[in-house]
Amino acid sequence: MKWGIIDRYAKSLIKEAGHKTRVSFFNQIDIDTKSSANDLVTNIDKEIEQFFISRIKRDFPDHKILGEEGFGDVVQTLDGVVWMLDPIDGTMNFIHQKRNFAISLGIYAEGVGMLGYIYDVMRDDFYHAAKDEGAYFNDERLPQLEITPLEEAVIGINASWVAPNHFVDNEKIIELIRTCRGTRSYGSAALELAYVSSGRLDAYMSMRLSPWDVAGGIVIAQEVGAVATNMKGDFPHLLGQDTFIVARPGLHQDIVTNYIDLKQ
Amino acid sequence: MKWGIIDRYAKSLIKEAGHKTRVSFFNQIDIDTKSSANDLVTNIDKEIEQFFISRIKRDFPDHKILGEEGFGDVVQTLDGVVWMLDPIDGTMNFIHQKRNFAISLGIYAEGVGMLGYIYDVMRDDFYHAAKDEGAYFNDERLPQLEITPLEEAVIGINASWVAPNHFVDNEKIIELIRTCRGTRSYGSAALELAYVSSGRLDAYMSMRLSPWDVAGGIVIAQEVGAVATNMKGDFPHLLGQDTFIVARPGLHQDIVTNYIDLKQ
Repeated sequence: MKWGIIDRYAKSLIKEAGHKTRVSFFNQIDIDTKSSANDLVTNIDKEIEQFFISRIKRDFPDHKILGEEGFGDVVQTLDGVVWMLDPIDGTMNFIHQKRNFAISLGIYAEGVGMLGYIYDVMRDDFYHAAKDEGAYFNDERLPQLEITPLEEAVIGINASWVAPNHFVDNEKIIELIRTCRGTRSYGSAALELAYVSSGRLDAYMSMRLSPWDVAGGIVIAQEVGAVATNMKGDFPHLLGQDTFIVARPGLHQDIVTNYIDLKQ
Repeated sequence: MKWGIIDRYAKSLIKEAGHKTRVSFFNQIDIDTKSSANDLVTNIDKEIEQFFISRIKRDFPDHKILGEEGFGDVVQTLDGVVWMLDPIDGTMNFIHQKRNFAISLGIYAEGVGMLGYIYDVMRDDFYHAAKDEGAYFNDERLPQLEITPLEEAVIGINASWVAPNHFVDNEKIIELIRTCRGTRSYGSAALELAYVSSGRLDAYMSMRLSPWDVAGGIVIAQEVGAVATNMKGDFPHLLGQDTFIVARPGLHQDIVTNYIDLKQ
C-alpha cells in the first residue's frame, strides 16, 4: 500500500471539503432531525459525506467507507482498508455557532490506524498523523506528551456525565472533577481529541461515542504517546458505539482505575 | 464626557495589549500561585494590567481602575468613571492552551455601563459596544437576539455547578441540563458572554464571578437585548463577587424562575 500517496490524497480531499463547508454558510442551512432534537443533521453534513464517498469510491474502489451519515458501506469487519469519516463532528456547534466543528477521518488497515486527520474548518487548524511518523499541528511537529498529575489536569468532560446517568457512577465523576484543576466541554469529540494530542487538554472522555468520532483522533493521539481506550482499558470498538477516554500516560491509568465505575 | 474619544482610545489600548500578549508567548511564562492551584496568575497578567493602568492614569487621571490583579485603585463606590479590567480572562486557558482567553474591559459612569469590550486575543476577534449605539463583532453589527425555548438552548455552564456545591441546589441544575439541548464550558466568562451576545450560546451562568469578569460583557449583552443579572434577577454587584446569568430574553426568566434555587 502506498501510504504516502493516500496521505497526500486524503489531506487534499479534506481541505477541499473544508472549503465547501465554509462556502455553505452563504446559503441557508436546512435542518432536519434524525433520532432526536439532540442529534441534528444538516444537508451540508450529507453533501460533504457524499463528496468524500464519490471521490474515494472512484479513486480507491477496493477501500471501504464507514461514515456517520450512512452513505458509505455496511462495514461488518475491519478487514482491508477502511476510511472512517465524520464530515462534520460537532453538528450542534456547526448549526448554533458556525465554528468549533471539525472534519474527522481515520484510515485503518486490517484494524490498525495508519493515517489520522482532524481539521478545525473555521480556524483552518489541521491536526494530522501517520503511524510511526509522528503527529503534526499544521506544519509543526507535536511533542511527546509528558506526565501530568490529576491535580494539575484540565479535563474535557460534558456536564451530562456529572449528572446521574445510565453509563457510569456519577458520584465517582463528581470526585474526579473536584480533584482535577478544571473541566471544559467543547461539543466536538474530534476537537477535544486534538486538544489532548496538542497538550491543550490533559484528558477527554465520553460514555458514548461512535467510530467516526474517534478513529482519526486515535491515530494522532498514539503518535504523541497519549493513551486512547474505552473505559475498560481496551482498544475502542470500531464497529459500533463504545465508551471512550484519551489522556496523557499515567493520568489515563489513574482515571480509569480510580474514577470510572461502569454500570454495564 | 467625550465617549467617542474614550471609545477609540480604549480600542487602541486593547489591541496594543493583545499584541503584547501574543508576543509574550515567545518568552517563558513564569507561573506562580495566588490563593490556590485553581487560581493561576502569570507575570504576563500583571504586566498587561500595569500597562493598562499606567496609560489610563496618564491620559485620564480622574478615572478609577478596578483590575483583577489589584494594581488599580481601591474602588468602594461606582461614582465617577470606573474602568473594570481583566487583562487575561481565562488564565487557566492562557497557561494550558495559549488560546481561548480574552481581554475584558467595561467603562462605567456613575454605575452605568457606557462602553464594553471583549477581545479574543488569539482569534483576533473583537466584540465591542457603546451604550445605545449597538454591539459589534469585529466590523459586523450584531443583531437583536430572538427568543429561544430552553429545549433548543445551548447553555454555557461549568460541570462544577452540576455537582453538589455551596451556592445552588444542584438537583435543579441537573434538571436544567437534561431539559436544554446541550451544554458547553469554555473556561472564560468573558468569551462565554461574547458567545451569548453573538448568538453562539443561548445562556451562560456561574455562581461566582467578579466585576472585571462581566463588566465589559454586560454592556455588549444589553445592546443585543440579552438579559444580564445575578441569580436573584438584580443587576450584578460590581464592587464584589456575585452570582451571574446572561441569556436571551424569555430564557433568562425561565431559568432564574424554574431552575435556580440559591442556598444563601
